[in-house]
Amino acid sequence: MSFNTFGRVFRFTTWGESHGRALGAVVDGCPPGLTLSEGDIQPFLDARRPGTSRFTTQRREPDAVRILSGVFEGRTTGTPISLMIENTDQRSKDYSEVAKAYRPGHADYVYDAKYGFRDYRGGGRSSARETAARVAAGAVARAVIPEVTITAWVEAIGGDFIDPAKFDANEIGGNPFFCPDADAAKRWETLVDNARKAGSSLGAVVACEAVGVPAGWGAPLYAKLDSELAAACMSINAVKGVEIGDGFGAASLSGEGNADPMRPGDAGPEFLANHAGGIAGGISTGQPLRLRVAFKPTSSILTPVETITREGEATTLATKGRHDPCVGIRGVPVVAAMVALVLADQKLLHRAQCG
Amino acid sequence: MSFNTFGRVFRFTTWGESHGRALGAVVDGCPPGLTLSEGDIQPFLDARRPGTSRFTTQRREPDAVRILSGVFEGRTTGTPISLMIENTDQRSKDYSEVAKAYRPGHADYVYDAKYGFRDYRGGGRSSARETAARVAAGAVARAVIPEVTITAWVEAIGGDFIDPAKFDANEIGGNPFFCPDADAAKRWETLVDNARKAGSSLGAVVACEAVGVPAGWGAPLYAKLDSELAAACMSINAVKGVEIGDGFGAASLSGEGNADPMRPGDAGPEFLANHAGGIAGGISTGQPLRLRVAFKPTSSILTPVETITREGEATTLATKGRHDPCVGIRGVPVVAAMVALVLADQKLLHRAQCG
Amino acid sequence: MSFNTFGRVFRFTTWGESHGRALGAVVDGCPPGLTLSEGDIQPFLDARRPGTSRFTTQRREPDAVRILSGVFEGRTTGTPISLMIENTDQRSKDYSEVAKAYRPGHADYVYDAKYGFRDYRGGGRSSARETAARVAAGAVARAVIPEVTITAWVEAIGGDFIDPAKFDANEIGGNPFFCPDADAAKRWETLVDNARKAGSSLGAVVACEAVGVPAGWGAPLYAKLDSELAAACMSINAVKGVEIGDGFGAASLSGEGNADPMRPGDAGPEFLANHAGGIAGGISTGQPLRLRVAFKPTSSILTPVETITREGEATTLATKGRHDPCVGIRGVPVVAAMVALVLADQKLLHRAQCG
Amino acid sequence: MSFNTFGRVFRFTTWGESHGRALGAVVDGCPPGLTLSEGDIQPFLDARRPGTSRFTTQRREPDAVRILSGVFEGRTTGTPISLMIENTDQRSKDYSEVAKAYRPGHADYVYDAKYGFRDYRGGGRSSARETAARVAAGAVARAVIPEVTITAWVEAIGGDFIDPAKFDANEIGGNPFFCPDADAAKRWETLVDNARKAGSSLGAVVACEAVGVPAGWGAPLYAKLDSELAAACMSINAVKGVEIGDGFGAASLSGEGNADPMRPGDAGPEFLANHAGGIAGGISTGQPLRLRVAFKPTSSILTPVETITREGEATTLATKGRHDPCVGIRGVPVVAAMVALVLADQKLLHRAQCG
Repeated sequence: MSFNTFGRVFRFTTWGESHGRALGAVVDGCPPGLTLSEGDIQPFLDARRPGTSRFTTQRREPDAVRILSGVFEGRTTGTPISLMIENTDQRSKDYSEVAKAYRPGHADYVYDAKYGFRDYRGGGRSSARETAARVAAGAVARAVIPEVTITAWVEAIGGDFIDPAKFDANEIGGNPFFCPDADAAKRWETLVDNARKAGSSLGAVVACEAVGVPAGWGAPLYAKLDSELAAACMSINAVKGVEIGDGFGAASLSGEGNADPMRPGDAGPEFLANHAGGIAGGISTGQPLRLRVAFKPTSSILTPVETITREGEATTLATKGRHDPCVGIRGVPVVAAMVALVLADQKLLHRAQCG
Repeated sequence: MSFNTFGRVFRFTTWGESHGRALGAVVDGCPPGLTLSEGDIQPFLDARRPGTSRFTTQRREPDAVRILSGVFEGRTTGTPISLMIENTDQRSKDYSEVAKAYRPGHADYVYDAKYGFRDYRGGGRSSARETAARVAAGAVARAVIPEVTITAWVEAIGGDFIDPAKFDANEIGGNPFFCPDADAAKRWETLVDNARKAGSSLGAVVACEAVGVPAGWGAPLYAKLDSELAAACMSINAVKGVEIGDGFGAASLSGEGNADPMRPGDAGPEFLANHAGGIAGGISTGQPLRLRVAFKPTSSILTPVETITREGEATTLATKGRHDPCVGIRGVPVVAAMVALVLADQKLLHRAQCG
Repeated sequence: MSFNTFGRVFRFTTWGESHGRALGAVVDGCPPGLTLSEGDIQPFLDARRPGTSRFTTQRREPDAVRILSGVFEGRTTGTPISLMIENTDQRSKDYSEVAKAYRPGHADYVYDAKYGFRDYRGGGRSSARETAARVAAGAVARAVIPEVTITAWVEAIGGDFIDPAKFDANEIGGNPFFCPDADAAKRWETLVDNARKAGSSLGAVVACEAVGVPAGWGAPLYAKLDSELAAACMSINAVKGVEIGDGFGAASLSGEGNADPMRPGDAGPEFLANHAGGIAGGISTGQPLRLRVAFKPTSSILTPVETITREGEATTLATKGRHDPCVGIRGVPVVAAMVALVLADQKLLHRAQCG
Repeated sequence: MSFNTFGRVFRFTTWGESHGRALGAVVDGCPPGLTLSEGDIQPFLDARRPGTSRFTTQRREPDAVRILSGVFEGRTTGTPISLMIENTDQRSKDYSEVAKAYRPGHADYVYDAKYGFRDYRGGGRSSARETAARVAAGAVARAVIPEVTITAWVEAIGGDFIDPAKFDANEIGGNPFFCPDADAAKRWETLVDNARKAGSSLGAVVACEAVGVPAGWGAPLYAKLDSELAAACMSINAVKGVEIGDGFGAASLSGEGNADPMRPGDAGPEFLANHAGGIAGGISTGQPLRLRVAFKPTSSILTPVETITREGEATTLATKGRHDPCVGIRGVPVVAAMVALVLADQKLLHRAQCG
């Protein structure tokens, strides 16, 4: 099955391939009366756009979004919002070799195994290019949750972590890595440059924080807030792990070490720690929401790797096309978008049941 | 919103509270004609059942499952299968203190914040007791995927990991920890015993492998196999992280280090590595599926922790009731059940679209 | 596929066969804090219960409902509400002949065609007995929409219609036919008695009105209020048609004859007619909701009808068991329940999007 | 809530307003490998297109469909198929009066009541123009069910019914009314012409038959084949009633008169009648599927009708714009499309569960 709709009441459906005419998203269930224009969406796409530095793929796309429906006189009408981004820079010739052999680590083989054949141009539907549609939808989601501020950043590249003590949110927008630690950003410049020049690639850890989520969002037991966030993030290309709060770190703690004590506060409880990342029992606690996402290194590397052809013959493949040396970097706006999309849905779900 | 149904075409809905009359699951969409009896389900419940060793909660429940519908003359009819487990050992008195104050780290506060009040007896709906219903449903799922063998085990307790070199699947059933490493099992005996005696608790990492999943299962982009597994596992009580394959480890690798090369094999490709954990592009590759789940230490500890009452007054709470010193241990059959439930759903979804 | 869940945010799942141990419903997404007890549900089941007059099947079931979860100290908790009704009067011997041959007009043949075999006892899952679970769920739905009053009645039996001029809502509860026209009720006594004695059966038209639905409920375009009502009613056993407002009558009108003019009223517009049955564009107008449902005569008749055996041999079948001579009569509380269930869902859906 | 996705596994989502830039559909879950081009879809749109005779609205749109994704080298890839139709003939000036006052019988008032404001141009999202997107999606559905032949026609206009004895399927395409009875077609010419000249409108009954549906499609109990068809048809603009088989006629019959006896046939049972319209217990019997749909007369008439303004003041409204005198006529391809969409979904659902 293919299943391209996400969400329960605030839903979006994406469509489009890497080298098709266009790609897009239909956002359904959006509350009416919200101010929305293409200008509100474009900055998020620009943050994700390729070709803005030498550390990302050199494919150059304006990624200009058009709103085709659902907005009238500058406000959402409550009807489906259709967003479209036309593809312009499609060098299909780069991918001719891919038509014959499976790029190891990519979805080439499994798409053939599942569907019997595939659009091999740039990965077709499995390309990370699809995440542009998510980012556009995510911008609509943000309009639904003005009370929430979402910040995402890169926490590690190739195993080199930021120093939490040097975390400065203002740094995030000031370097090509969405890095909150100025020193780490400098180190990563060399690190990613070397990888790029060597035709290699690097994994990354992306972190995200959402401040302003009130206590009570989440739909237990099978649309818990953390469960939905895990699904949303794991659906992003190249993601192999998701943690909420201390995540795998919590598995090494004792109950005492992991405790989040509460005290009476001015508005509800004041928490003395946030090991839980703002979620207990699948419901937001009112603390900042915190999660972490692991991106594998992109599988497109210059080193030849053993693989097979469509006909099952042995061959090797080296990827020479335009690729991100560290796909996690451009994953930052995507993670933020998915978090926004989940939160918008959960806000409306909560309102449905609990008024 | 509460949302207690999981799955797309093979679906289950669970109901019931820790101290209610009963709990259960309705499994819908199950293929007809499968052999199924209570005797096929009970062993999985017995593996999860509390009170079987001193390392788990001393609550004693027979957890006897009854099939109330959907099976006729020993075979599934294709209609909903209703499974019920009656609650028998309910010491409501243990929980009187909990009615007044919020146990930190538990869902007490957020249930009140969300719903306005809560069934405070044993955590009510947020109790891990609900996972019994999942395990029962998971046993039905296994009948749908006879080609798949699912094995789950504990990989670490309190930060003490097994030695992969000593992995022996036959050991898993031979100790109270579902531990595949006999030496680690011995160490954990002391470790968990000490925690239990001290009224403390420990986190754990549970791993799961599914062998026999053919290439092609998965419903991209928003019901990808890994995305569904992440959602399923993250919905389990106390889970804070999910990894597929190398997970967060992959984020520290280079593309060369993370490559899964392919060679021609006897039946489809032969893979030379499995960093991906058997999933690429959200679709199974035909390799063994591998995932890892982080369980936090249960928040019920003897050490008094600062908290607040329902009225917002400061207080402290120490938990004296019957609790698991390491809830991850009994999470093993639950993780395996959730994996089975996802795979059964994905098998049918794949059949729907791809025949 | 079997698909036994109805609703978008206020959902219910039913399970159980005619001659199984029990049947039930799980209601999910119910708002918390509503007063609910078994005593609130039982009267609706009693109205549907068989064996209360000679005009319905003589199967005698107490149809006593038990709430197994989701209610604490007399109020809904916001978690799933499990409702169970045990089967007590199961004369399986009555149905031995049915195991071999297909009752024409019943679901016997199609269940075998679809699932390969079937629970032949009393129709198994296809029995109208399942509607008891809907009626129980419908009672919960009514608690969600206290602003709405739902009334249902029989408008015609075997082509004999009530006289609209003699409509008296108080009569509905005063005769065994849910008939609002005392004269018609008398005629139907003879009509149905004759059918019963002859081993024949009669079709019926059931009407339903819901007063108090505010303007604005409905989820266009594919969960429009009328669309959901049509699906809900058509899913009831023996139903072959659904009309909203003037229904098929409107197809014979001109635009002038079908107009529903509006005037300024005290609270919103005052409508001068209600051809539309209270729904325009799939959204409630604030007028009374009106719909009509066609029930076919039950196919169980004493006259032998040609049919085939499971092996495909020719045979004839006459039904001697206990059956409703006019299944539409007991359809009245079922239609009302389905309307309540749709409205509860639509109320919450509207609140989700529009606050 | 707005809810613009239809289907369970074969799903489509539509978007777009009458006077927006474009409208479209995203078809998801389509099996891979099916031959599909714009040329396969366009003829269905042409059949629905306005302005082809004087009996339909004079709005002239080419309604040219573009496939933006999901098809590669002439075949479906199994990924979402995005279909777009640009709006070209948008005379927004025609609708200025509508911005101020509510057209009675239209969705103007309820959209304001629900969403707080509305796109008043041509009915916005509530316009029947949206059905173009359904027809495009329906053409894709037909590719999924090549074994089924769907035929739809007009059975009555303004209460003037065809003579079943004169039914000739070949006539349907030969007149502007989709009328299978040549004599009725002639009468309707005068009938509709008179209504058009008088600025009046007429209701209609549309019938549909699907031949080739095998026994076994349908997803009881809440996605029964008839239930899904009822929902699908009732979601079409101006529809007020749906009947399966004899429909309301069956409510006036006795069990003997309504019987569908079976005999052994060459391939499964041979039925001696089809009162049931090819569906029993919510599952197809293998007989031709038959349903009937009631379209009200469009509410846009030249006769002034009392209504209110947005501010609640009394006024009257006469509609002078371009409208269909009998919207049921152009409903024919829409009904056929919805039937195709339901059947494609049910085919895949059946395959999911029953292999």
